[in-house]
Amino acid sequence: MSLRPFFEPSSIAIVGASPNTTKVGGVVAHTLIMNMEKGILKAKIYPINLKHEIIFNTKCYKSLKHVDAPIDLVIVAIPAPAVPEVLEEAGQVGVKACIIISSGFKEVGNVDLQNQVVNVAKKYGIRIIGPNCLGVFDPFTGVDSLFLPEFKQLSTGKEVLATPRPRPGSIVLISQSGALGAALLDYMAGINLGLRCFVSFGNRADVDESELLEYFMEDRLTKVILLYLESVSDGRRFLKAAKNTSLKKPIVALKVGKSKSGARGAASHTGSLAGIDQIYQAAFEECGVIRANTIEELFDMGRALLYQPPALGNNAVILTNAGGPGILAADALEDSGLQVVELSERTKQLFKQKVEEGVFPPIMSYANPVDLSAQVSSDGFREALNILLDDPKVNAILVITLHHTPFVMDDIVGKVAGPAFEKSKPVIAVDIGATEMAQEIRARFEKFRVPSFNAPERAARALYALAYYGMFLKENGVSK
Amino acid sequence: MSLRPFFEPSSIAIVGASPNTTKVGGVVAHTLIMNMEKGILKAKIYPINLKHEIIFNTKCYKSLKHVDAPIDLVIVAIPAPAVPEVLEEAGQVGVKACIIISSGFKEVGNVDLQNQVVNVAKKYGIRIIGPNCLGVFDPFTGVDSLFLPEFKQLSTGKEVLATPRPRPGSIVLISQSGALGAALLDYMAGINLGLRCFVSFGNRADVDESELLEYFMEDRLTKVILLYLESVSDGRRFLKAAKNTSLKKPIVALKVGKSKSGARGAASHTGSLAGIDQIYQAAFEECGVIRANTIEELFDMGRALLYQPPALGNNAVILTNAGGPGILAADALEDSGLQVVELSERTKQLFKQKVEEGVFPPIMSYANPVDLSAQVSSDGFREALNILLDDPKVNAILVITLHHTPFVMDDIVGKVAGPAFEKSKPVIAVDIGATEMAQEIRARFEKFRVPSFNAPERAARALYALAYYGMFLKENGVSK
Repeated sequence: MSLRPFFEPSSIAIVGASPNTTKVGGVVAHTLIMNMEKGILKAKIYPINLKHEIIFNTKCYKSLKHVDAPIDLVIVAIPAPAVPEVLEEAGQVGVKACIIISSGFKEVGNVDLQNQVVNVAKKYGIRIIGPNCLGVFDPFTGVDSLFLPEFKQLSTGKEVLATPRPRPGSIVLISQSGALGAALLDYMAGINLGLRCFVSFGNRADVDESELLEYFMEDRLTKVILLYLESVSDGRRFLKAAKNTSLKKPIVALKVGKSKSGARGAASHTGSLAGIDQIYQAAFEECGVIRANTIEELFDMGRALLYQPPALGNNAVILTNAGGPGILAADALEDSGLQVVELSERTKQLFKQKVEEGVFPPIMSYANPVDLSAQVSSDGFREALNILLDDPKVNAILVITLHHTPFVMDDIVGKVAGPAFEKSKPVIAVDIGATEMAQEIRARFEKFRVPSFNAPERAARALYALAYYGMFLKENGVSK
Repeated sequence: MSLRPFFEPSSIAIVGASPNTTKVGGVVAHTLIMNMEKGILKAKIYPINLKHEIIFNTKCYKSLKHVDAPIDLVIVAIPAPAVPEVLEEAGQVGVKACIIISSGFKEVGNVDLQNQVVNVAKKYGIRIIGPNCLGVFDPFTGVDSLFLPEFKQLSTGKEVLATPRPRPGSIVLISQSGALGAALLDYMAGINLGLRCFVSFGNRADVDESELLEYFMEDRLTKVILLYLESVSDGRRFLKAAKNTSLKKPIVALKVGKSKSGARGAASHTGSLAGIDQIYQAAFEECGVIRANTIEELFDMGRALLYQPPALGNNAVILTNAGGPGILAADALEDSGLQVVELSERTKQLFKQKVEEGVFPPIMSYANPVDLSAQVSSDGFREALNILLDDPKVNAILVITLHHTPFVMDDIVGKVAGPAFEKSKPVIAVDIGATEMAQEIRARFEKFRVPSFNAPERAARALYALAYYGMFLKENGVSK
């Protein structure tokens, strides 16, 4: 059965709904009812609680059977032992999908209880996300089962954002871990990266990463998929789903549990076997999944894939106005397996000619890194970028525009983003620093969809993702 | 001769001083005169310029000889060909030190001109920093030869910080590259890391990294030294200087030019041979220099070494309230060569007992990572941290306190920083996210001198630096 009821339900029941927002069922009921009142959520809401008539101005029902209308999705927030009975009832009233937030199943050894739930669900054809998960947050339809408090009060009395929701966007985030998932949403919100949909699947008693990939593969709003994984539930199925998806849109995976202690952690966390890392690595390569090594990389790569076209080869050029960062970029690109090749004779000739014409400073170096020197202006960057974009040997360009040098002003952004937009080769920008002008310049680059980083090494890894994905598409005969 | 006149001169002459702050000599004169007026700079200032009587309300001199008083330090900001003559004059009037900002020497092939400068300096015993450098910024004495504009005007008309000066602090930053050095200062200012002193030495015709290490080794205000290097000028001398320094205070080095193209970049940048990376790696290990792989790591490690004691072994424990980040930390620690060992029987017993007493949630895992689960409160963290700090097998602790979980409030900072302060084992904190509460919590941890990171992998690398340095001290019989 389709996963659509999880994301676009016509009606939602919350089992364990509460008027108390310090309780899980209270947070979920409150969020959904607020989303409905704001007009984001179109679904009907049915809070279920034996003891209450009204919750947040909304009629409350004693059980699922008391709701005299079809229910698409049930969110379950009650203690684990009571869950099978609720599933049974859900089946009897024709519920299609169920998010089981409750923990206390396989992850703490209660395998039988989890199996019981699965069996009931199978009997009635109910699809399950969870148990032991955060569930779903879809900013487009307003479905939101994140039970962590959105705001918290500091000891000073001030109320602050604690678990923020990112703005609507094009990136899907699928996480095996719930708490880490919430933290990643916090990260996304902080860097203003838009979210298409978030799913935390926890013990994945039913719906797993492969099926979610297939769902978002077909989703028009999804451009990039980010995965946090401790293991996959079915390797062969994952290979197929991930490859099919990769052919349509890029997947970046943060797969953990490489180390002995990491694998031990995964076992006690979601009861999963992290497996031999080389096998995962080979599988990812087979199906075009781009591997991130850190949280930062996951989003750096995601951002690059969202904004820029894939590179059609692994020849990269570094264009810079400062030697040091250029060398850092060169080291990092080569370390990732990209080629930082010497420029073609024709391109060198062009640079030489323009130096003679006074367009570029005479002390510039047109080896690769191409170092325009601290004497270059924003206009010089535009000229140089155009020359490099026109070189058929060049597949991708990493542009370092330190704003500290005397003649680089904020017009640098347009002078770099313009040529980048016109040609279909990826361009990634770097400006180092953490105060006003650095932040302004990076923010403006982002507005023009040129991913911008505060360190050459980060940009290099993002460029690697574009090259890795471009080569995968090319090998599989897909042109983008 | 001592390097002291570079940092604590009684008088400074600026050759090439200008009333125009779009010129190099204008920026330097303006900054120094402002620093004098603010009372930061105690030295007398002598602007040198043939054409002006007064620059920024300060009497201007036609040449060094026209200054009728001793001059400790000369800052040279005139075209390269005129530099030897100025040096000759400086020698005749008894100048002790000279910062040559001017470029156009060895880095563009003018080896003879540079040799000429060196010979004159040797004849008179003048010490030189540069040429082709930014020179010195010492926030304690106000010496500042950074000629890059501190503010720039955006196209909107707004004036913004472009090359900020970090606040006074305990970290020395020594950079072979000028522009990168300025960018690193921008980074430090943005993360509010205090600077003891900045030196950019460019072509190092005289003063090199080794001598600078020896100078700051003896400097009371210096706690940690950060190096950006493309090469060292004299390997044997560096080994000796770095080892002697490391025995007193930690050095972190970002050594670039590992790759073929990176080495090519280094050659055209500061005319230096980057050399075979394995040789550098072995040298660093020999003399206790901690190697950073990225700009971010350079400061992450610097911050950790500044705030926390070194670890006296490489057994690390991860304490967390979320499984996923714990696994990420475990992978990253083991990847850096640390041991994420199982806890001792006694410690496990203690945890078990406290679970029975209801201090810790029954679903907690006391493998390593120690996962207190999302149900833990700030008090639970304190209890667990105390148990781990008391375990003699444990050398360092990485604490992950995701604030998203229901019962972790901002009092977590005191509950973690308190025990960490009382025992002499390093503790590093992680909270993931980039919005209000995450920022508040990380900032408070920093106030209590617990380095705090937005990703477990960054914290793991910082912890590695503490263990690497602790083991070096131990091997060399130094106790701290």
